[in-house]
Amino acid sequence: MTDFFAGIPKIAYEGPDSDNDYAFRHYNPDEEVFGKRLEDHLRFAVAYWHSFAWEGGDPFGGQTFLRPWFGDTMEAAKLKADAAFEMFAILGQPFFCFHDADVRPKGETFAENTSRLREMTDYFQGKMEQTGTRLLWGTANLFSHRRYMAGAATNPDPDVFAFAAATVKTCIDATQQLGGQNYVLWGGREGYETLLNTDLTRERQQAGRFLSMAVDYAKKIGFEGTILIEPKPQEPTKHQYDYDVATVYSFLTEFGLQDEVKVNIEQGHAILAGHSFEHELALAASLGVLGSIDMNRNDYQSGWDTDQFPNSVPEVMLAYYEVLKAGGFTTGGTNFDAKLRRQSLDASDLILAHVGAMDVCAAGLKAAARMLEDGKLEDARTARYAGWTSERGDVLDQDLETIAADVEQNDINPQPHSGRQEALENLVNRYL
Amino acid sequence: MTDFFAGIPKIAYEGPDSDNDYAFRHYNPDEEVFGKRLEDHLRFAVAYWHSFAWEGGDPFGGQTFLRPWFGDTMEAAKLKADAAFEMFAILGQPFFCFHDADVRPKGETFAENTSRLREMTDYFQGKMEQTGTRLLWGTANLFSHRRYMAGAATNPDPDVFAFAAATVKTCIDATQQLGGQNYVLWGGREGYETLLNTDLTRERQQAGRFLSMAVDYAKKIGFEGTILIEPKPQEPTKHQYDYDVATVYSFLTEFGLQDEVKVNIEQGHAILAGHSFEHELALAASLGVLGSIDMNRNDYQSGWDTDQFPNSVPEVMLAYYEVLKAGGFTTGGTNFDAKLRRQSLDASDLILAHVGAMDVCAAGLKAAARMLEDGKLEDARTARYAGWTSERGDVLDQDLETIAADVEQNDINPQPHSGRQEALENLVNRYL
Amino acid sequence: MTDFFAGIPKIAYEGPDSDNDYAFRHYNPDEEVFGKRLEDHLRFAVAYWHSFAWEGGDPFGGQTFLRPWFGDTMEAAKLKADAAFEMFAILGQPFFCFHDADVRPKGETFAENTSRLREMTDYFQGKMEQTGTRLLWGTANLFSHRRYMAGAATNPDPDVFAFAAATVKTCIDATQQLGGQNYVLWGGREGYETLLNTDLTRERQQAGRFLSMAVDYAKKIGFEGTILIEPKPQEPTKHQYDYDVATVYSFLTEFGLQDEVKVNIEQGHAILAGHSFEHELALAASLGVLGSIDMNRNDYQSGWDTDQFPNSVPEVMLAYYEVLKAGGFTTGGTNFDAKLRRQSLDASDLILAHVGAMDVCAAGLKAAARMLEDGKLEDARTARYAGWTSERGDVLDQDLETIAADVEQNDINPQPHSGRQEALENLVNRYL
Amino acid sequence: MTDFFAGIPKIAYEGPDSDNDYAFRHYNPDEEVFGKRLEDHLRFAVAYWHSFAWEGGDPFGGQTFLRPWFGDTMEAAKLKADAAFEMFAILGQPFFCFHDADVRPKGETFAENTSRLREMTDYFQGKMEQTGTRLLWGTANLFSHRRYMAGAATNPDPDVFAFAAATVKTCIDATQQLGGQNYVLWGGREGYETLLNTDLTRERQQAGRFLSMAVDYAKKIGFEGTILIEPKPQEPTKHQYDYDVATVYSFLTEFGLQDEVKVNIEQGHAILAGHSFEHELALAASLGVLGSIDMNRNDYQSGWDTDQFPNSVPEVMLAYYEVLKAGGFTTGGTNFDAKLRRQSLDASDLILAHVGAMDVCAAGLKAAARMLEDGKLEDARTARYAGWTSERGDVLDQDLETIAADVEQNDINPQPHSGRQEALENLVNRYL
Ligand SMILES: [Co+2]
Ligand SMILES: [Co+2]
Ligand SMILES: [Co+2]
Ligand SMILES: [Co+2]
Ligand SMILES: [Co+2]
Ligand SMILES: [Co+2]
Ligand SMILES: [Co+2]
Ligand SMILES: [Co+2]
Repeated sequence: MTDFFAGIPKIAYEGPDSDNDYAFRHYNPDEEVFGKRLEDHLRFAVAYWHSFAWEGGDPFGGQTFLRPWFGDTMEAAKLKADAAFEMFAILGQPFFCFHDADVRPKGETFAENTSRLREMTDYFQGKMEQTGTRLLWGTANLFSHRRYMAGAATNPDPDVFAFAAATVKTCIDATQQLGGQNYVLWGGREGYETLLNTDLTRERQQAGRFLSMAVDYAKKIGFEGTILIEPKPQEPTKHQYDYDVATVYSFLTEFGLQDEVKVNIEQGHAILAGHSFEHELALAASLGVLGSIDMNRNDYQSGWDTDQFPNSVPEVMLAYYEVLKAGGFTTGGTNFDAKLRRQSLDASDLILAHVGAMDVCAAGLKAAARMLEDGKLEDARTARYAGWTSERGDVLDQDLETIAADVEQNDINPQPHSGRQEALENLVNRYL
Repeated sequence: MTDFFAGIPKIAYEGPDSDNDYAFRHYNPDEEVFGKRLEDHLRFAVAYWHSFAWEGGDPFGGQTFLRPWFGDTMEAAKLKADAAFEMFAILGQPFFCFHDADVRPKGETFAENTSRLREMTDYFQGKMEQTGTRLLWGTANLFSHRRYMAGAATNPDPDVFAFAAATVKTCIDATQQLGGQNYVLWGGREGYETLLNTDLTRERQQAGRFLSMAVDYAKKIGFEGTILIEPKPQEPTKHQYDYDVATVYSFLTEFGLQDEVKVNIEQGHAILAGHSFEHELALAASLGVLGSIDMNRNDYQSGWDTDQFPNSVPEVMLAYYEVLKAGGFTTGGTNFDAKLRRQSLDASDLILAHVGAMDVCAAGLKAAARMLEDGKLEDARTARYAGWTSERGDVLDQDLETIAADVEQNDINPQPHSGRQEALENLVNRYL
Repeated sequence: MTDFFAGIPKIAYEGPDSDNDYAFRHYNPDEEVFGKRLEDHLRFAVAYWHSFAWEGGDPFGGQTFLRPWFGDTMEAAKLKADAAFEMFAILGQPFFCFHDADVRPKGETFAENTSRLREMTDYFQGKMEQTGTRLLWGTANLFSHRRYMAGAATNPDPDVFAFAAATVKTCIDATQQLGGQNYVLWGGREGYETLLNTDLTRERQQAGRFLSMAVDYAKKIGFEGTILIEPKPQEPTKHQYDYDVATVYSFLTEFGLQDEVKVNIEQGHAILAGHSFEHELALAASLGVLGSIDMNRNDYQSGWDTDQFPNSVPEVMLAYYEVLKAGGFTTGGTNFDAKLRRQSLDASDLILAHVGAMDVCAAGLKAAARMLEDGKLEDARTARYAGWTSERGDVLDQDLETIAADVEQNDINPQPHSGRQEALENLVNRYL
Repeated sequence: MTDFFAGIPKIAYEGPDSDNDYAFRHYNPDEEVFGKRLEDHLRFAVAYWHSFAWEGGDPFGGQTFLRPWFGDTMEAAKLKADAAFEMFAILGQPFFCFHDADVRPKGETFAENTSRLREMTDYFQGKMEQTGTRLLWGTANLFSHRRYMAGAATNPDPDVFAFAAATVKTCIDATQQLGGQNYVLWGGREGYETLLNTDLTRERQQAGRFLSMAVDYAKKIGFEGTILIEPKPQEPTKHQYDYDVATVYSFLTEFGLQDEVKVNIEQGHAILAGHSFEHELALAASLGVLGSIDMNRNDYQSGWDTDQFPNSVPEVMLAYYEVLKAGGFTTGGTNFDAKLRRQSLDASDLILAHVGAMDVCAAGLKAAARMLEDGKLEDARTARYAGWTSERGDVLDQDLETIAADVEQNDINPQPHSGRQEALENLVNRYL
């Protein structure tokens, strides 16, 4: 038992009128929406890296956080795990997520990395059995170590590919052991800093092969979770191959993996790619690859990935609307890939950030459910395309000549109809 | 014979030391590069719309250009064509490009549009035979008329789909009649303003079907040119379906069209999508869909499509380097999808803008050719990936377990190697 | 009486539970906040240009709106005014704003412009007396006509300066006649497209002199309203001299006008300048120049000025919080410098857009008032700076040597304190 | 003598045709331009921080560089200095720049910081006397240590203000001792992460007082160099008070410091603020505060400060054109505030990056000088404003009524003239 969170109570639902900072005002885990508990809709997960491994540095300054568990020893790693599970107990969220590098000290060799990861996996397993907290997903950090500076799967050096592949094996193993519901690949260094030294074709082939290996291995060991790719357009690299959902889908189909792999969509990454979060979600659903979400927010003024906790109910609502329309999460969930501002030094900041985020998500999902249930928005959408379900829709089965003849002979001269954007925006606001 | 360009001489090559504004300093059409004439490498085309149809308006102001051919009559349309071919004679570029709406007055009906387009096509044909100027590509303007405000192929109204499809037929016909080497589709309104009223799945199906129809028709009439899609991420709409090369490629494969259709890549659109021009070109080449280019430049400070004439030799050089590496243009070419600044009122501005742009492109292509011929950059690239062509490259044929065992047993612990970005940038500068 | 808004009822307040599209759910004009009616807090104004003069064009397409009052005659201008005042009656907002070019047909000469403006001013005066709708501000359109393409005050041609100055006189006269509470200058063309042909020093002098003339004239005729400058960083020009609040303040002080002129801050312009709306408001308040606001929203994905109606209560709340903290509006108000999406063709769209926007603003202002009244946010802010109001604050009166000696001798080694950003964001969400 | 740069020769000028990587092709220090040696025009400085203190980390990865001098001891600091001066000898650039934190290990207390800085200052002094390398400017790092996370001058804690002020004293002392030609303040943390916890007015007052103290102290000790502020809009903070040149100028005038302080303008910061580098330079010159430049480049695709070495002669040319027009540097110079890409691991990368950058700057300055000398661009600019130096310019001395009467009576109706942007861009390209 650490005393890091000493004095902070377990967070309970107290309703919208509570002015207790340490209470949920919207997130009532047992509240039912469409016959399913909110907890089972939202499937919240804490991100181990931001909450427990990040030290508060930025490109212009070093560590600001002072945590008792910072250090490169196994003792520190276990103390960190202790604190983490204490936070999970306070928040009561059902899941967490981690990279290997978050949970074990960096070893000198692959063998050392592996044995340390195994030891920590066992340690986690004990705590998970004890507390009931589950693993939403595991992943390998293939971007922080200098060996990966030029890519992991897409590295010009086959040995780096091998080291990365071997590491992914150990992380799938750990995820499998802990009953992880998904396994994620985020290719932070799978991209380039300059096209001048880059062979796009070769690197894409390497990436395709790497992913196929991971899929094959997961199948072989009977992993029943979902393999997920997390798109991001840039940062740290100038260009990342998993740019956005459309690009990832193209990559998956090129390698015949579109039925094996889904996407984990992060709000901040959607923004950086020039999309809205709801766009990326809707597109993934349309393409059949919507897997899970990394919920956070980017500062719209910044050109980089600020990974802030979500705080806008209207924005979050639109995201969950797409999730609900797509049928909700199966193995996926809501992972807070969000970090404290580096000035938020205190244990209470870490708790309150999550409390606020969980509440924003709960309020957003409930508003989305109201809107979906009410049906007015979907009715408007359906009405807009009604022509296509009429006989007139058979134009799709014709050819250009037939159509041209028809247009000319019948003097087809369609008049535009209002898109009603502002009216629909008003409608949306009604559910908030 | 109009007198619009009165007093402006035919532009000739005078070499780098010329201080004659009305001369080429770098573009010598007959100069050979890799055994091919510069003219045949660059395949310059003038864009009819920007140069002859645009009136100088922007979102905050109206027409600034006073052209004798502005007006909605067939006489005006022919006067415009006369002036256009006079400019082609002055510049001596081998090609031009047009939309139907650029060359014929807007009709009240499809039939009227069609007959006017036919009359103008005949008029063009006469001029082309007389002057030798050829058609790089034709295209249909499916975005300016209010009927298309909510999309052409992706419109919620099947009648608009039909009107657009019929129009494409007439434009393919015109392109075929004029010996056009390509036919382009740019989906300026194929996207959405708000996801709230949009059905992504349905609209993508419509777009796929529309493109298939165009491909089928072109085949049927024996069109030997290339069908091209021009990606753009946004503007005029909030989101456009042909976002970038990767997205278009994904779309093509979804509808089995990746061997039928290539891309026409515009510098400004690449920038808006968060890419460099050379990235989009290299990716298209890697995916086998590099078709043609719209050469222009976007102001990096603006978030919109400024469509300026290119003026940076170093930037243009990197673009042509990718073109040359990919084997150069076949049916494609260099279309100046660029417009004068709206304060550039004079006939001389129109000529000088093209002269400068042609010179910048010629200088860029020649620098690119020197770099490719010298081979140092490609040698450096090859050397960087040398490991993959060694025996070690067989790691791609293994599986995760084999690799992990190997990494552990042999204590594989790769050290990173310099990416040499600055050295390569210095190298590139040497060819300028 | 036009029939443009036929069938649309006068909008009344029905409370949050109303599902009537044509009702206010939050805007109850007579509701008191801090002892002042909501109507008097918000001081809503309709923007004549977007709502009645804009035709729906964008850089890639022409007119989409079909309005009976489009046309270049005085009859059309009066019909437009009739429709406008009918809309004012439906909405019940207290104010409107206009440019000269919005309300009168373009004349061939300055004299014709002036006489037409005078006639329309009289026409407006009659309607205003009849209906009680008041003028928040008038302004001159010094950017749409081609004569202003290179600037009005900052034009290289003194005759354009003169034409613009004369026009401002007529617009101040009209504003004065109509009891306008402010007069606004927005310098859409006061900037440059290329630095290559620009003399920054000369142009800034011209702009300073122009503004001084306007201030002097307003004083001379006894205008009791406020002169306002509206900052914008770019668009239409590449760079605009009134970039943001800080830049405008610098300009005002250079010409000794900081006590004569205030700023009209637009949300979309703040965003384009890389700021949040609340930043610009807070800075203007801090500098003593907060005048009025143009309430709209920009799409964060676009790099251009989308001028959409506001729809985010959380964002609007933060803006009104700054307004309330600064003491609320005096002559200023909330002008909806917002335009329909060009697909929103119908009369109902125009009404509903305003209804939604007014409701969003009312909800935002009420939330802001609750937060200000509760005081927790201000208490937290005060507490954060408490050191400065303690004795320790006297360090500001010392010099570097004294301070350095003190720091060294007393081993001053301050520890950082949490900035509590997430906790404060949670707090803000509590008032929504 | 370290062996870090073993095998790398001293760089000499070999002319444009050299293909020696380790030679200047354009930078011939003794070449005269306008009667002044190139070395004296460009006044190159190496930035100690990027070249010797930065370890290669980014937000997603740690150290990539392995330098023998990394470590927290005085021995390491001296080894670093040895290597630095060896690099200066190889490059032959006349100046360098440093922060206190670059050159001395971090102490536990202010006293320890100070004594270490003093020891390193003496060490530098010896090396400078020996080698002739001079100090362009010194500065205090008031942003990396966690004590500064919420600002230095603008911190809510007066003790942090004091610590920062005391530190500035020691850095001015060091700069004075080393004959530094300028002293720079860059306020990386002088801004805010959230407006919610910020008092803009109070913080601006603190910043004004802090700067005044620095100016007073510099005067008192007889510092003959220039005090410079370096603007930057954001990053690391969400908003920085020294946003851009216009904002800094406003700040200086508010505190009466506009004759005491100038600006150090960085290319990358100009870009982040939505300006071109040449804009910021031209504006500073126009306002009389152009001091020095931080030459680097930002990737236009990134939203963050990439601090790359310059590699575009056309861009650099436009910057030096403004410098030359303003009379050239006095105490200022060209500091390469640029860092290697983190994959550029080798000593050779560090040398070649500077060689390339120096060559690009030399080529750019020489092109700028040719353009200035030729006079065609300035002639075109002068001609454009000719009306203002004619009698007609007296309109500036009139008032609105007089002008309006004149415009009406004389039917002033100015026609616009071409801005000739493309022609001028062609002209510029002629000097490259
Ligand atoms: Co993520
Ligand atoms: Co992120
Ligand atoms: Co184009
Ligand atoms: Co374009
Ligand atoms: Co406005
Ligand atoms: Co606007
Ligand atoms: Co700098
Ligand atoms: Co920088």
